[in-house]
Amino acid sequence: MTALLLIILGGLCAVAYGIVTIRDVMKRDAGTARMQEIAGAIAEGAQAYLKRQYATIGIVGIVLFVALAYFLGIKVAIGFLIGAVLSGAAGFIGMNVSVRANVRTAQAATTSLGGGLDVAFKSGAVTGMLVAGLALLGVAIYYTYLTRGAGLAPASREVIDALVALGFGASLISIFARLGGGIFTKGADVGGDLVGKVEAGIPEDDPRNPATIADNVGDNVGDCAGMAADLFETYAVTVVATMVLAAIFFAGQPILEAMMLYPLAIGSACILTSIAGTYAVKLGANQSIMGALYKGLITAGVLSIGAIAIVNFALFGGFGTTFKTSTGVTFTSGGLFGCAVIGLAITALIVVITEYYTGTNFRPVKSIAQSSVTGHGTNVIQGLAISLESTALPALVIVAGIISTYALGGLFGIAIAVTAMLALAGFIVALDAFGPVTDNAGGIAEMAGLPADVRKATDALDAVGNTTKAVTKGYAIGSAGLGALVLFAAYTSDLNYFIANASDTQYRFFRGVTVDFSLSNPYVVVGLLLGGLIPFLFAGMAMTAVGRAAGAVVEEVRRQFREKPGIMKGTDRPDYGRAVDMLTRAAIKEMIVPSLLPVLSPIVLFFVIQAIAGKNEAFATVGASLLGVILTGLYVAISMTSGGGAWDNAKKYIEDGHHGGKGSDAHKAAVTGDTVGDPYKDTAGPAVNPAIKITNIIALLLLAILAHQ
Amino acid sequence: MTALLLIILGGLCAVAYGIVTIRDVMKRDAGTARMQEIAGAIAEGAQAYLKRQYATIGIVGIVLFVALAYFLGIKVAIGFLIGAVLSGAAGFIGMNVSVRANVRTAQAATTSLGGGLDVAFKSGAVTGMLVAGLALLGVAIYYTYLTRGAGLAPASREVIDALVALGFGASLISIFARLGGGIFTKGADVGGDLVGKVEAGIPEDDPRNPATIADNVGDNVGDCAGMAADLFETYAVTVVATMVLAAIFFAGQPILEAMMLYPLAIGSACILTSIAGTYAVKLGANQSIMGALYKGLITAGVLSIGAIAIVNFALFGGFGTTFKTSTGVTFTSGGLFGCAVIGLAITALIVVITEYYTGTNFRPVKSIAQSSVTGHGTNVIQGLAISLESTALPALVIVAGIISTYALGGLFGIAIAVTAMLALAGFIVALDAFGPVTDNAGGIAEMAGLPADVRKATDALDAVGNTTKAVTKGYAIGSAGLGALVLFAAYTSDLNYFIANASDTQYRFFRGVTVDFSLSNPYVVVGLLLGGLIPFLFAGMAMTAVGRAAGAVVEEVRRQFREKPGIMKGTDRPDYGRAVDMLTRAAIKEMIVPSLLPVLSPIVLFFVIQAIAGKNEAFATVGASLLGVILTGLYVAISMTSGGGAWDNAKKYIEDGHHGGKGSDAHKAAVTGDTVGDPYKDTAGPAVNPAIKITNIIALLLLAILAHQ
Repeated sequence: MTALLLIILGGLCAVAYGIVTIRDVMKRDAGTARMQEIAGAIAEGAQAYLKRQYATIGIVGIVLFVALAYFLGIKVAIGFLIGAVLSGAAGFIGMNVSVRANVRTAQAATTSLGGGLDVAFKSGAVTGMLVAGLALLGVAIYYTYLTRGAGLAPASREVIDALVALGFGASLISIFARLGGGIFTKGADVGGDLVGKVEAGIPEDDPRNPATIADNVGDNVGDCAGMAADLFETYAVTVVATMVLAAIFFAGQPILEAMMLYPLAIGSACILTSIAGTYAVKLGANQSIMGALYKGLITAGVLSIGAIAIVNFALFGGFGTTFKTSTGVTFTSGGLFGCAVIGLAITALIVVITEYYTGTNFRPVKSIAQSSVTGHGTNVIQGLAISLESTALPALVIVAGIISTYALGGLFGIAIAVTAMLALAGFIVALDAFGPVTDNAGGIAEMAGLPADVRKATDALDAVGNTTKAVTKGYAIGSAGLGALVLFAAYTSDLNYFIANASDTQYRFFRGVTVDFSLSNPYVVVGLLLGGLIPFLFAGMAMTAVGRAAGAVVEEVRRQFREKPGIMKGTDRPDYGRAVDMLTRAAIKEMIVPSLLPVLSPIVLFFVIQAIAGKNEAFATVGASLLGVILTGLYVAISMTSGGGAWDNAKKYIEDGHHGGKGSDAHKAAVTGDTVGDPYKDTAGPAVNPAIKITNIIALLLLAILAHQ
Repeated sequence: MTALLLIILGGLCAVAYGIVTIRDVMKRDAGTARMQEIAGAIAEGAQAYLKRQYATIGIVGIVLFVALAYFLGIKVAIGFLIGAVLSGAAGFIGMNVSVRANVRTAQAATTSLGGGLDVAFKSGAVTGMLVAGLALLGVAIYYTYLTRGAGLAPASREVIDALVALGFGASLISIFARLGGGIFTKGADVGGDLVGKVEAGIPEDDPRNPATIADNVGDNVGDCAGMAADLFETYAVTVVATMVLAAIFFAGQPILEAMMLYPLAIGSACILTSIAGTYAVKLGANQSIMGALYKGLITAGVLSIGAIAIVNFALFGGFGTTFKTSTGVTFTSGGLFGCAVIGLAITALIVVITEYYTGTNFRPVKSIAQSSVTGHGTNVIQGLAISLESTALPALVIVAGIISTYALGGLFGIAIAVTAMLALAGFIVALDAFGPVTDNAGGIAEMAGLPADVRKATDALDAVGNTTKAVTKGYAIGSAGLGALVLFAAYTSDLNYFIANASDTQYRFFRGVTVDFSLSNPYVVVGLLLGGLIPFLFAGMAMTAVGRAAGAVVEEVRRQFREKPGIMKGTDRPDYGRAVDMLTRAAIKEMIVPSLLPVLSPIVLFFVIQAIAGKNEAFATVGASLLGVILTGLYVAISMTSGGGAWDNAKKYIEDGHHGGKGSDAHKAAVTGDTVGDPYKDTAGPAVNPAIKITNIIALLLLAILAHQ
């Protein structure tokens, strides 16, 4: 119980950090009345969007809550509710801080770059810490209630099912928030640019563009709320899946509870190191913003190694203790510590690789900029080439991670590595949520007509924001892929458990089931193929949705220009609210069907194959499809997010004065590449993450429901 | 022996058809001196390219020949030689007919559309029949020699190894020809367009553009020789893999030889039906070119059902005979017939689906054309969305094919379905090789200044050529994916065979090996991930190579314009030869490294994993990597070829007068999409096919070499 209390205390530290930092941010100067007016419009739009999004998810959520309560009992349904509500809360609070910090960042940038960085990063850190803290608290407190309050055994099915449902609640928010937010933000961005930059010839963030507020709203609902929901989910499902594996592998052993608490303890310890990391973010004498952020990340990472070592001593008495799982695998507590360190190393490597592929100092981005000189076509060709190529190094890192952690700790070792990777989520989300704040700050500076040097400071912050957004996306997809592998391991372990314990009185559905997961079973091949299809089809649908939403924005802006000719002359104000409102409706409508694809496919697949070939093959097909989703999803998502980031920065590189600079033909080609990259990196690519995870978690729930038949 | 003789007779019919048709085509009027001069330059460039390509492959080939002779004996090395030489011959002869038929097509089109169609289609049919005929003859005659002449038992390892090596010979030509030809053709196309259309403002095929001959050469070396090598390979490896499966499944049974001959007999019978189909290609009263081609395809398909039924009676005495494999699976000869019919149905469905995604009459192409109205960016976004979406239906067809044929005939049933699918390769390649001939005919008409109505006829033929090229690519990737699955089945069956028969005296390497191909083995996951990476990385490298080759073309053309200002005025002739020569060197250089990726990866992977984790995991990882390549390769290749075809035809659709027609802003955006689609559909996408197959065949050879240790 002491361990649990300490874990919860760690989570509460994150919440406390959030409260203190929100107060600190809100105390800052909010700028002129004009700036506050603009920021108010952004905040209003963002809240209106999130309200409608949550209302829509709420309807789906209520149906699922009732279904879960009916099939699996009220404790499981409450787990689902906790996951959904806390994930929503993290996104909602974080975004509300974001839309208040943007204007304060712009104002702080009027005096110094360091001041702007301070406000922007702190507001991002609020979101980050809330994501990690609330996810940890949700799992830890509900687990405490279930095992202490309700007196259930830690490894009992009811506890496992309730925790899996908690992950599912987070997943549900995640898939909708990622996709809806992504469609909103890129519909606004692409549509606004098309009609503003291309047709009307006005710059980005020009207040005469009726879509400009929507564009700034989009940054918040997409990058802030969407990313928060995504990583909340990965965090929650990874911790839960690791606990499920612990419950299966160590059932009946005295070490069981310590093993189940290990992922929670790592999470809790790393919240403290992440908080410490935030205090290391200080602009040095060289004025390098990225350098300041990396200082914080490295501090958090190095401290985490020590913190996890302490956890090892506290739970296992050091590094020499040997364990044996129910499946006969042996490893030591030192091996598990090694896995955690490897998890941190994977994080570091993915950050470095992503920066290489999306940073303006390296070959990939420069090659796209160079190819822009010969036109739109060659820019896009080179961008696609880079996007395909960028999958290789992350894949090799992930493979090396799997092989080394499996050698050290078997499947449980892989799970611990992913847990450690995600333990830094608080800090990493802080880096990402920093992006929309600085982006907004630049927009507000532009719209409010602040002096040029303010805009220069916000631009510098914004450029770093682009890199941190790309880096976070690399981390998000890498961790989602590995987290999904842990979920997949949980699926096979769970399935084996049900089959082994099936009898007349329990798990009757699994009596006599034998599942052949071998690659020579054609149903495994079929599962891999159908699972592998999901990310392609899903990404295609997401791209189409952005195209449609952007088209709607174009129509709306054209209509406003036509009906109010004074807008372009600056004598009439555009109706920003209508554009926001229209996009809100479009994004919510467009997110439904693609979201259902990964949600329903494991269920439909199971029952279709069961009808064709029976239970055994249905379990094999669904299992293989989970791995198929992970496999192609990883590549599709990495290629889209890295490629999109590279396109974006190739444009920035040209704008910095290379190949003819702004306004040159190369720049025009680079703008095309950036437009293509927008839905790639901010809608389709990131939305593949929750798609990967949700198919896996649904499959786990399906097993639980079948076990109750 | 009678059966074998009849099979060989069928193959000889294809060769006879080729000879007769070549004579027929060569008799046609070759047009004016100017036309012949242009055609001569194209022919010269194409031959120069192929010579250098074969010389380069020859060096690699000699090394491999010696290595195979050393490791596996001279009979195996000779098998390799046969595969390589015949594949090269099919491509070389076919291309030489193509570069003579182009000018005759242009000349025939001066009198009638039907005349042009007749010449173009017949010359394509020569390539098609040579591909199917030579592939069949190579396998059948060498098998006859090995089992009759050399007196080896049909199921002996030496026979199997020699046949697999024959497939490998074809693979080697295929990967280089696909990639080198693809880089050449799209380097010329993209580079020529960039500097001609965009910079100098001259139309496509303008004789003043120094890259215009290279562009026409590219059509022949890419679409004709490259596609021929690709399908020769799929044909050969599928037939061989099916025979290997038959040898393993029916070893020691009286039915063994009939089962091994079954795929050959299906191939032979369908050569006859394909020839019959070519005679059904006649322009009807409605002047529909596509309709005429489909008449031929449908005729060939329907006749094939009957022909395969006859084969069933000849080999198995009807549909009711029951067989049992050594692995305990039972099925009937009627079931196998059903599998063959399903194979034909898959072909038909893939043709229909590809036409839907790439034809100008349907939603996908129209949506890309529509999105061109709002600019380059939205054109590319919608094109990418369609390319991703287009993977879904083919995947579902393939999955349905796997499930149904497995139910009817187990793994062998799947192999028979793919065999039947490929039995139509002769006719399908004819459709594809038709494309470059009409494309060239249009170019010659333009360059020779023929009257506008001739150009209109060749344009009509060319538009159909675009569709048939896209359709053939869909078929090529679908069959390659399924063929690779058969190869994968051969890998696992072969591996099991070696393990089961390992002793002190034979297959010593496999003693005590137990391979866990289950998805819960992390090395299987690692294999899937690493295999899945290959198509992404390979496609990225291919795209980059095209970009570089196109850049070199731009430089060369700019240099010529600069040094000879008379070119643009029409007073000086460009040096076409230098552009061809330069591209030849660039394409050959660029094809080497990407080609080695799929060739070396199974070998490197095996030895690296063996060093890390031992033999068992090495076999599991390599096996899983084969399936990983198939899985992502299928999706990457389908999305690229369909997406590229859709972009191409969206441009054509706009040129037909929609959305403002030629010269409008929408058209400019569509040209960008077409440029992006070029390397997608003609280089990277199609080159993934041989990459999929060659990894699988290398793995089979690796087993054979290890068995000889």
